[in-house]
Amino acid sequence: VPASLGSAVVIGTGLIGTSIALALCERGVTVWLTDHDPAAARLAHWYTDVASVKALPLRQASALGCDLTSFVPGHPLSGRERSGPAAARADLFLGRPWVICPGPQTGPEAIAAVVALVRCCRGEPVQVGADEHDRWVALVSHAPHVVAAAMAAQLTDAPGGALGLAGQGLRDVTRIAEGDSGLWTQILAANAAPVARVLAAVAADLAAAAEALAETGAPPHPAEHPSVKLLMGLLDEGSAGVARIPGKRGAPVRDNAVVQVVIRDQPGELARLFQVAGESGVNIEDIGIEHSPGLPVGVAELTIRPDSVARLTQALAAAGWPVRR
Amino acid sequence: VPASLGSAVVIGTGLIGTSIALALCERGVTVWLTDHDPAAARLAHWYTDVASVKALPLRQASALGCDLTSFVPGHPLSGRERSGPAAARADLFLGRPWVICPGPQTGPEAIAAVVALVRCCRGEPVQVGADEHDRWVALVSHAPHVVAAAMAAQLTDAPGGALGLAGQGLRDVTRIAEGDSGLWTQILAANAAPVARVLAAVAADLAAAAEALAETGAPPHPAEHPSVKLLMGLLDEGSAGVARIPGKRGAPVRDNAVVQVVIRDQPGELARLFQVAGESGVNIEDIGIEHSPGLPVGVAELTIRPDSVARLTQALAAAGWPVRR
Repeated sequence: VPASLGSAVVIGTGLIGTSIALALCERGVTVWLTDHDPAAARLAHWYTDVASVKALPLRQASALGCDLTSFVPGHPLSGRERSGPAAARADLFLGRPWVICPGPQTGPEAIAAVVALVRCCRGEPVQVGADEHDRWVALVSHAPHVVAAAMAAQLTDAPGGALGLAGQGLRDVTRIAEGDSGLWTQILAANAAPVARVLAAVAADLAAAAEALAETGAPPHPAEHPSVKLLMGLLDEGSAGVARIPGKRGAPVRDNAVVQVVIRDQPGELARLFQVAGESGVNIEDIGIEHSPGLPVGVAELTIRPDSVARLTQALAAAGWPVRR
Repeated sequence: VPASLGSAVVIGTGLIGTSIALALCERGVTVWLTDHDPAAARLAHWYTDVASVKALPLRQASALGCDLTSFVPGHPLSGRERSGPAAARADLFLGRPWVICPGPQTGPEAIAAVVALVRCCRGEPVQVGADEHDRWVALVSHAPHVVAAAMAAQLTDAPGGALGLAGQGLRDVTRIAEGDSGLWTQILAANAAPVARVLAAVAADLAAAAEALAETGAPPHPAEHPSVKLLMGLLDEGSAGVARIPGKRGAPVRDNAVVQVVIRDQPGELARLFQVAGESGVNIEDIGIEHSPGLPVGVAELTIRPDSVARLTQALAAAGWPVRR
């Protein structure tokens, strides 16, 4: 434990605050945990926060005449869909980016103390300006939330038959729209301008795609048809965008291979499967289960490194599992 | 095997055609599989197809003066991201909806034969009009694909730092945008009007959200603020829409509980975990791994029925696993 982190006051006993307190306790830091205590806050030598928007609170603190030399705005990226202290865990920040946004006024001791805090929580410090941070999270977190909600909103009065045709694709596109709308409205309003820019761009692309589709007329549609070119261009750009998102270990997701195994929907089936997989010595990067609504079988998808495919499929096939690439 | 399915000609040896042929072979049906054979097609007694759009090909067949009494348009919902015969499997349609769209001219023998085909492939026949089918898939499949692409397209020139902050939410929202843009452009153009209607509605909601955000101004934003009300309304509607998507066994996903276990990233770890889970007698509905980029641990998320939570967590904790709800 660095000297700068001999003790800490954590104000706010929700998911993040309690998880930080747990992580610091594990590392021997003396922690006071409180939900609201202005006196304790006044005694502190340095400050950080964990809000997901950074420029606005910094402007507000500056406008209030606060001393900014000891304040280092922070944002741990540790998304969970649950909240509250019951969901807290000491390893919540493990290996996840933790943005800190010191300004020109910030003192080096304050920065060092907050970096030590991040390391104590086993997060990865990422140093960037507050405005740039806000543009980044608008793009990769805040705008996607609204896009998912806008697609999901179309389902509220959909016929049951249509929803019965839904597959994993629709579930994935709309999943994050399940969040707390009150909290998200606050976040969006606090990062209004950067989110508005991304949403306006997405809305314009979708409006252009809708217009192009409305004008296509009957097929055949040659590749030079302007509507076809516009649609194909948007889909190509989307495909290129997805390819840029880093996966586990920073490697692009597409470098991995997927092996499929048909499993019965009963206790012990996955244990038997992973027993064989484990004995083969192959490390499984990710798993998923493809659903078969209404039926007692499914398909387990095992994501592994491409050079392990032969070893895993041979081991599974030898043990009698129906395997497919 | 029903008499009507003594033999079948499958024209098209891609993922779907080869999977149908495999399924029929398993059930003792004599199958001819060919990529293009007008002579074989002329000899057949009944016809179906597997295109994901139904009204347009029906109109085209009608305009060509085809005999529609023996043609039953069909669409098996068996999405896979891979394609081609190598990805084919006899159980591709297992428990998945398979839409058939007979019209007023369709003969009852043809319908019976196609229903028998669907049952042979262990799919679930869903009978609905061609226009309604096209509106349904526009909503739950075609439009979500374009929405995912439009969001992902914003990432093509994003700074690397922004992408480093990406979490599972962004990955899920954009995942399906990785598909084949040429094939998808064809599908979208063939179902142009219904897709255009959904996209225009999503674009309008996003444009309104962008405009509301651009007008919010500095906080505090009271709940009656028109921008706040508009945003909150869209997010609430999105949340309600997601809740309507059926999960495994037709039950809403939110009825399930999730138990989290910290795992090391090494061979055999999942086998040991599922060994204990299997011995507890609890059936695991779904699994996921939460990534810790760059680090050798992760969190396995086990989705189970809520009444199994106590049993599973006790069994895991007794075996020394760090468990959380």
